[in-house]
Amino acid sequence: MKERIRLYLGIDGGGTKTAVTIITDTRAVVGEGTGGPGNIAVTAEPVLRRSVLEGVSQACAIAGLEIADTHFAGVCAAMAGYSDEERRQRFFELLKGLVKADRYRIEPDYVAAYWGATLGEPGIVVIAGTGAVAYGRNAEGESYREDGLGYLLGDRGSGFNLGLHTLRYTLDRMKEGNVDRLAAAVLEFTGAQSQSGIVRWLYGDFVPAKVAELAPVVGALADEGDRAARDLVAKMARCLRHSVRQVRHKLWLPRDVPVYMLGGLWNIGSFFRSEFIQPTWRVEGEGDDLSGGRFLIGTPHADAAYGAALLALEASLTGS
Amino acid sequence: MKERIRLYLGIDGGGTKTAVTIITDTRAVVGEGTGGPGNIAVTAEPVLRRSVLEGVSQACAIAGLEIADTHFAGVCAAMAGYSDEERRQRFFELLKGLVKADRYRIEPDYVAAYWGATLGEPGIVVIAGTGAVAYGRNAEGESYREDGLGYLLGDRGSGFNLGLHTLRYTLDRMKEGNVDRLAAAVLEFTGAQSQSGIVRWLYGDFVPAKVAELAPVVGALADEGDRAARDLVAKMARCLRHSVRQVRHKLWLPRDVPVYMLGGLWNIGSFFRSEFIQPTWRVEGEGDDLSGGRFLIGTPHADAAYGAALLALEASLTGS
Repeated sequence: MKERIRLYLGIDGGGTKTAVTIITDTRAVVGEGTGGPGNIAVTAEPVLRRSVLEGVSQACAIAGLEIADTHFAGVCAAMAGYSDEERRQRFFELLKGLVKADRYRIEPDYVAAYWGATLGEPGIVVIAGTGAVAYGRNAEGESYREDGLGYLLGDRGSGFNLGLHTLRYTLDRMKEGNVDRLAAAVLEFTGAQSQSGIVRWLYGDFVPAKVAELAPVVGALADEGDRAARDLVAKMARCLRHSVRQVRHKLWLPRDVPVYMLGGLWNIGSFFRSEFIQPTWRVEGEGDDLSGGRFLIGTPHADAAYGAALLALEASLTGS
Repeated sequence: MKERIRLYLGIDGGGTKTAVTIITDTRAVVGEGTGGPGNIAVTAEPVLRRSVLEGVSQACAIAGLEIADTHFAGVCAAMAGYSDEERRQRFFELLKGLVKADRYRIEPDYVAAYWGATLGEPGIVVIAGTGAVAYGRNAEGESYREDGLGYLLGDRGSGFNLGLHTLRYTLDRMKEGNVDRLAAAVLEFTGAQSQSGIVRWLYGDFVPAKVAELAPVVGALADEGDRAARDLVAKMARCLRHSVRQVRHKLWLPRDVPVYMLGGLWNIGSFFRSEFIQPTWRVEGEGDDLSGGRFLIGTPHADAAYGAALLALEASLTGS
């Protein structure tokens, strides 16, 4: 007969996949799995159900468990689309139907990303992808989020933001009749041949992720030394630096608190990363906003699914 | 038997209505009519067909004509959604099927608005509604458009822009725990009770027009002397002033060239209008960008449907 141990389930639902991790009281991973799309605001309920079921079943199988016979001490689901309260409530009901547990908890995705990266130690995660958000927590357990308000209200320093600035830059160059290397690269990428072609590309079936697809184009040119691309990329790096400094300031975090760079945008090039860590590039027409010094960059300890599992464990310990 | 006279048809298609005017060689109006929605980029083809047919039939009836028996010397349709080239081509075919004419012409809506307002004399129209565009023409017949690139790339000084800045302002005040009069008005208007409530209101079924609906709320408070509302409204007025100055500069127009204020945003309050005509309000944290002096404001001579009819006439005269 098996020893009875307490198990905690963490679920990290994103736009394209749902990651699942099961841990024990001692924080040891006993199973992991993945399912399909898990953004609760945009994913249809049957798909969401299948994503979660698939991920949890896989993780259970690896742990030598049957999902139907397993009763978790705690479950935490950290889901993209969290801010849609109505959908969140419906997902909560769906989750209770799929998984048996003593406690259920739903958190924003960036909170789980923080817990995974830091294991709960003071620190700041700066997540840059199509959107952008910075989130930190201090030794007293106070937390603060900066930005993360979506493409119309913020997402400063995001892939969307970089793409949009690049489109504006391109339109300006076309207006001047001076299509430089960056503008030419944008025209090639979008297949546009005129100002109105750019406008059509942007607004036709608009989604923020489409605009973010321009980011790697700019990032690559910045790495090659293109001045215009460097200006744009450096501006984004500075937006993200600003968000991190805001979090550090609001939480009274020491200057050497680790900063964890998460999200796909960090892969667009080494210039972008180095300008974030310690800027040296002077953006034309801007003052010397190179303050804040070098960031201490941390290596993430684990992923957001593990972070979610830790949150399930923490909730269970504190009774919250 | 009737005298045969040359007739010109002007069509002004907007988001909610389509206005039609028939004029003669001597620019005299002989018929007017209106139909339903006429934005070619977003209106379904059967609706578009009905809108045009209704407007043209009404105008013909007033002129004592039957649409089926009437052959126009020229037709000009100035349609919202013009930049969608594919839709424009389809609308062109539809128009040819509905109305018989020697010449057909399709123009952006702001060009017809300019011709209606100025009757072709040098001048600048600044159209502010959900979006924003400035367009002018000089004595040599050169024209220039500033902005009009939609809510993601521009529309500076538009109702959308004002609404979005107001939402950002409200989020900032909520973050500080300092909900002032303007922020309270926004919360009441949106029905939101929290930051995430604002975010949901904005992104749920987002259309730019929804954001622009906040503009009258801010405009009214600005008229009452509310400082925050005045700052925001003055910023928008300054964006529009900038667009007008750009048009004036590019076309070498004299300082006293008339400026025509068109579009619904001008109705949000007298403070907005006077800040546009001659700014006096100093926006907090901004330099003294009050340059450019007082604008000479013109009273529009006619509407965009009449302007479109003039464009039809002009095309016929110049053979363009």
